[in-house]
Amino acid sequence: MSDKAVVLLSGGLDSATALAVAKDQGYACHALSFDYGQRHAAELEAAKRVARSLGVVEHRVLRLGLDEIGGSALTDEAIEVPETPQEGIPVTYVPARNTVFLALALGWAEVLGARDLFIGVNAVDYSGYPDCRPEFIEAFQKLANLATRAGVEGDRFRIHAPLIHMTKAEIIRTGARLGVDYSLTVSCYQADAEGRACGRCDSCRLRAEGFAAAGVPDPTRYR
Amino acid sequence: MSDKAVVLLSGGLDSATALAVAKDQGYACHALSFDYGQRHAAELEAAKRVARSLGVVEHRVLRLGLDEIGGSALTDEAIEVPETPQEGIPVTYVPARNTVFLALALGWAEVLGARDLFIGVNAVDYSGYPDCRPEFIEAFQKLANLATRAGVEGDRFRIHAPLIHMTKAEIIRTGARLGVDYSLTVSCYQADAEGRACGRCDSCRLRAEGFAAAGVPDPTRYR
Repeated sequence: MSDKAVVLLSGGLDSATALAVAKDQGYACHALSFDYGQRHAAELEAAKRVARSLGVVEHRVLRLGLDEIGGSALTDEAIEVPETPQEGIPVTYVPARNTVFLALALGWAEVLGARDLFIGVNAVDYSGYPDCRPEFIEAFQKLANLATRAGVEGDRFRIHAPLIHMTKAEIIRTGARLGVDYSLTVSCYQADAEGRACGRCDSCRLRAEGFAAAGVPDPTRYR
Repeated sequence: MSDKAVVLLSGGLDSATALAVAKDQGYACHALSFDYGQRHAAELEAAKRVARSLGVVEHRVLRLGLDEIGGSALTDEAIEVPETPQEGIPVTYVPARNTVFLALALGWAEVLGARDLFIGVNAVDYSGYPDCRPEFIEAFQKLANLATRAGVEGDRFRIHAPLIHMTKAEIIRTGARLGVDYSLTVSCYQADAEGRACGRCDSCRLRAEGFAAAGVPDPTRYR
């Protein structure tokens, strides 16, 4: 029997690729998504399509009241998504998002008996979020092994961030090789209900540049 | 103006005391509770009463689907709450609970501009949960300062666990001195809808022994 892995799946390009990598490494994948009041709810539909297309064992969507906390252009209607590149950490940063997501993935992993967690963060062609950096991932792995029954008993958790040192083009080439259908994914911060992209936000810009640099046809549907 | 603090408030004895300590230290307290499908929903009512009684600035209750993950006697109806002391980490352990709670408290703190988080964990008279130990708290503080915009910009978060080295009797004496009305709190893992305790579970046992050792009258309502 394959080892189980919990894979965080947003419906975007990166997490779809991380899932394909986990599968390629032989894990039985349990995908986890969050309904956290994100503006781009089309992402959740994309996550379901991606999970189905890549053949996960199970896909769970957890409701999470991050919109009750606010503080980000991605969860707060009152903050506008910028359409030009910003200096520093942008307003689309959701406070402590990856900490919350990994914490819940960790809880589910412990229940499932999985010791491997996959997250599609990337610290090269990314938006400058602090919780996408290698030092964050390392600190979380350390925490996971202090926080849990399994970790304390010596059955250690591993946090895999297979894309962390890749450029966007490398991510796309990796996924294309592993059979990811990127037409199913949605990266846009303000996609419409059908998942069509704006073509102007930070996330759209990084994605389009990635396909161009990878020499892979861009299947993104723009509105 | 006082510095803001986010205080995790469960409605139990320990977190009520942690809130009183935070208030005594001069913080403007923002209390955070979770509706996570816990069996003892009477705890949430207790949290509201405690928050009101100690005069918080704001009390927020976040919905969180931990029951969808299961794996604990506290969230899964199929697992029985034990009424005799258990060896090792007990079945009432909720996988990664304090990691999840602190992660959400961190997100809210960042939005509020608070840099101080209070959690009422205790590593002396406790149930042996791994995420109640000092090394867990230290690892979380380290993570918090890598995970967030504020932390990265050098405006560091502090995770306060003022009860961590206290006995249950010391906690109760501290709270009594600071005016905590313990009749408002509910500790029982299987309290009834009115918040009356079973008197038999691990949590009831620790609480009753604590009042006896502190020489403080025990206001717990048993059914």
